[in-house]
Amino acid sequence: MTGRQTGRLLAVGVGPGDPELVTLKALRALERADVVAHFAKAGHASNARAIVAPHLRADVEELPLLYPMTTEQPKQAACYRDAITKFYDTSAATIAKHLDAGRTVAVIAEGDPLFYGSYMHLHVRLAPKYPYEIIAGVSGMAGCWSAAGHPIAQGDDVFVVLAGTLPQDELERRLADADAAVVMKLGRHLPKVRRALEKSGRLDRAIYVERGTMRDAVMMRLAEKKDDEAPYFAVVLVPGWEQRP
Amino acid sequence: MTGRQTGRLLAVGVGPGDPELVTLKALRALERADVVAHFAKAGHASNARAIVAPHLRADVEELPLLYPMTTEQPKQAACYRDAITKFYDTSAATIAKHLDAGRTVAVIAEGDPLFYGSYMHLHVRLAPKYPYEIIAGVSGMAGCWSAAGHPIAQGDDVFVVLAGTLPQDELERRLADADAAVVMKLGRHLPKVRRALEKSGRLDRAIYVERGTMRDAVMMRLAEKKDDEAPYFAVVLVPGWEQRP
Repeated sequence: MTGRQTGRLLAVGVGPGDPELVTLKALRALERADVVAHFAKAGHASNARAIVAPHLRADVEELPLLYPMTTEQPKQAACYRDAITKFYDTSAATIAKHLDAGRTVAVIAEGDPLFYGSYMHLHVRLAPKYPYEIIAGVSGMAGCWSAAGHPIAQGDDVFVVLAGTLPQDELERRLADADAAVVMKLGRHLPKVRRALEKSGRLDRAIYVERGTMRDAVMMRLAEKKDDEAPYFAVVLVPGWEQRP
Repeated sequence: MTGRQTGRLLAVGVGPGDPELVTLKALRALERADVVAHFAKAGHASNARAIVAPHLRADVEELPLLYPMTTEQPKQAACYRDAITKFYDTSAATIAKHLDAGRTVAVIAEGDPLFYGSYMHLHVRLAPKYPYEIIAGVSGMAGCWSAAGHPIAQGDDVFVVLAGTLPQDELERRLADADAAVVMKLGRHLPKVRRALEKSGRLDRAIYVERGTMRDAVMMRLAEKKDDEAPYFAVVLVPGWEQRP
């Protein structure tokens, strides 16, 4: 590296959590990277980093990108919006400095970088200006339905991904209108999601999954889950393929 | 292996096509397998096999599962339904014989095994009777949006997967109702899909992708594609995240 040429931005999907669900391409990217950047809550270790920790080079420079808030906030709140925009601007600027100096920067991302991932905020800021490469990853939800052993969608099934943050009537309408669904971002929204599943006639098929590909995974029929406690990253699967031949 | 214990069924997602997008877990499964089964059209090589060909053990037993028909058929046709059901029954029975003999059988699958994959037909026949393991893979569509460099969905976006085989009015209604979409199984349905995108106001955002993670990939704005020729496995991406901060 001479510093005269700009470095390359690598967006590296590291999969849903099981370190074995990392791709060869992701490992090669970690071998090539001068800098490895990872998002985390302040005071917490990065999940993406934990997944690939055994594969990080001893001499790699790490760049933790720490979210400015640790609890979920309503998106509409102006102060949240300002703080998070500034955070992504600053993070992108820090990475840009490395790229300008000719360093290859790998941003590691849980799941897939362009599917509901924080990397996307860096992508729109940096991809127009720097050479980049996206390394697709196994999504968190694929990790969940694989761990649960439930085929999710087949043939002409309409498959939909919904956030638990949506209003109940919208969840209900969309669940009733789809063959297969994943509801993500559960957390405190679980009671509402449960009601929407019940009203749309999908509760019986719904599977609750927590930490899908981890050793301490929790999987059960949602109808059998007694409490309404759920971490933010737990998901509900509604498998389709009801008319299997 | 003594033959007294039944073997293990491994469903192995091998990703969208790029041999580097195979996971470590998939490679370990291929190392463990006594038999590697793969679906293919009669007279054609298996795509999944081509992806992992360099990783197949020299002494592994291969079991090609050849679809009884080579062209797309309307699903309602009774003769198609009978033939395909018999095909999956026979394929499952052949694999069951290996499992009964104590052999580990890996069924390799493009993309992810439980997401619109042929393996699912074997799963419902074999998983109730044999120990199994599902190894999630990078989906074909993630390979496509990564190759195209387009963030697909973010935040509360509603993301939907549609088959090009659906009627035009249904495609239109569902495209208008989603933030982000993938339309798969294009082939001869492309003119209809294009009309549905136009009527739902999504044509301007639509990206056409053919052989997403291959060297000879084709990617362009669908509005700029002059002809209506498309292979069956081409997809249209409609990226969401329109109100990015």
